[in-house]
Amino acid sequence: MTHILLANDDGADAPGLIAAYEALCELGEVTVVAPAQQQSGQAHAITLETPLRANRLRERPGYRVPGTPVDCVKLALNQLVESPPELVVSGINQGTNGGILVHYSGTVAAAKEACLQGIPAMAVSLCQYRDCDYSAAARVTRTLAERLLAQPLPRGVLLNVNVPPGPYEALAGLRWCRQSLASLDDVYERREDPRGRPYYWLGGSGPFKGEAEHDDLIAVEGGYVALTPLRVDWTDEESWRGGGSALVEPL
Amino acid sequence: MTHILLANDDGADAPGLIAAYEALCELGEVTVVAPAQQQSGQAHAITLETPLRANRLRERPGYRVPGTPVDCVKLALNQLVESPPELVVSGINQGTNGGILVHYSGTVAAAKEACLQGIPAMAVSLCQYRDCDYSAAARVTRTLAERLLAQPLPRGVLLNVNVPPGPYEALAGLRWCRQSLASLDDVYERREDPRGRPYYWLGGSGPFKGEAEHDDLIAVEGGYVALTPLRVDWTDEESWRGGGSALVEPL
Repeated sequence: MTHILLANDDGADAPGLIAAYEALCELGEVTVVAPAQQQSGQAHAITLETPLRANRLRERPGYRVPGTPVDCVKLALNQLVESPPELVVSGINQGTNGGILVHYSGTVAAAKEACLQGIPAMAVSLCQYRDCDYSAAARVTRTLAERLLAQPLPRGVLLNVNVPPGPYEALAGLRWCRQSLASLDDVYERREDPRGRPYYWLGGSGPFKGEAEHDDLIAVEGGYVALTPLRVDWTDEESWRGGGSALVEPL
Repeated sequence: MTHILLANDDGADAPGLIAAYEALCELGEVTVVAPAQQQSGQAHAITLETPLRANRLRERPGYRVPGTPVDCVKLALNQLVESPPELVVSGINQGTNGGILVHYSGTVAAAKEACLQGIPAMAVSLCQYRDCDYSAAARVTRTLAERLLAQPLPRGVLLNVNVPPGPYEALAGLRWCRQSLASLDDVYERREDPRGRPYYWLGGSGPFKGEAEHDDLIAVEGGYVALTPLRVDWTDEESWRGGGSALVEPL
C-alpha cells in the first residue's frame, strides 16, 4: 500500500494539514509528523542544542514534534516511520510560498529535506491569509500527489505548488512555472519600549509581484495553480561554466 | 570609502568573526551585525513573532542582535547601516559549509539574504571544528573580498568559500567548485529520560564525502580552498525546459 508522509510548518492541528490529510487518505496510508507550534519563517532550520520529543497524535496516525518542519521530516524518516514513504507532502500552508519566499518557508524546506534524502516531495501552499478555504487546494494536492507517485521528478528536484484562493471550479488550470526573483518589500518598524529603548519588528514583506509570464506569482495572480520545479543543487551553472575568472587567480 | 557588512552564525564574539573583521579592515570600513548567541543550523530562518533588539558592540563598530543570521542582515540593511555596503561577508564559520550543508547553514543564509537584496556577498567557513586557527582563512577572506569588490559575481549569485585547516603556506590554492550532493549520514539517538519517556537527539551528521573531482568537499580534502558559486533562483532548468509533462495535464 502506498505510504505518504505529511508535514507542514503551521503545526499538527492546522486546518490546511487536516485538509491535505483527508484528501491524501484516498491514495493510501498517510502518516502525519508535524510541528507542535507555528513554525512559519523557519526555513531549513534544525534543532541541534536540545533533544526532540515525538508525541503521538490522537486524531490521526502520526506525531507532534516540538521542533522545526525539517526536524519533523528528519526525525520521521530516521526514527518514527517504519518503512520509507513513497512521497512526502508538506502543507497545505496558509499563505503564498512562491518567488523568493521559498528561501524563508518552512513548508518548502520540509519537502526539500525529503528531496535531499532522495524521496519524491512536494510543498503545497494556499495563497490566502484569512478565512482560508482549503477545499480546492486539497483536491489539487490529491491529483498532483497521484501524478507524482506515478511519475516522480528527477532526483534532487522537488515540486513547489501555489494555489490561488477560490473554489475548485474557478481555477484556471495548472501552469508550469519558474521561481519569481522579485524582491520583498521588507519594512522593519522602529518602536520604543516603555523605557524608551528602541526595538524593531518585521512588518509587511509585501506587496511583491512576479516579473515574467511564467513566474509563479504571476501565474497565481491569473488564477492558475503554479507548479515550480525546484532543485537542491544550488550551483550556478553559468558561473560554474565560466571558470571563476579573476576570483581563482593564484593566491 | 569601501563599506563592508560582516555577519555570521556563531555570534558577535566568535573568534572567526573577529579574524575576518581584522582582515577586512585593511580594505575599508567594516560594520559588524551578528547574532547575540550561537545560531548554527538556523538556515534562512527569520523572526516574525517577536521584535528584535540591536545592542551596540563595544569592541568594534556594529551591533549584536538577539536573532538569527538572516535577521541580522535584514535589520542591518533596513535600519542599522546608514549607506548600503558594497559587500556582505558572512563568517568565518567554525566548521564546513560545503555540500548539502549549505541548506542548513546560517552562515551561508546570511550571505544569501544579501544576495537576494542585490548586494555582492560571500560566506566563508573554516573546515575545522576544534582548536581552530583562523589566520589562513582570514587572509583568504581578505583576498577574495578584494577580488569580489573589483569584479562582483552576477546578480543573484553568491560565493561560498570553504577553507581547509592548516597554515596559509600549506594551502594548495583556490579551486572553482560545484556544490557536492553527497548525502548526510543523519543519526538520531533515541534515549530515555529519567521518567522512562523517549527523546531523540541529532548526532553525527557525517561523515560524508564529495563524489566528483570538482565537488567542494573533495577540493577541501585535497587542501584547496573551495569557491562555489551558488544561485538564489532554485528553478530546475532542465525540468523547466521539459515543460512538466504529465504533471500539468488538465485538472
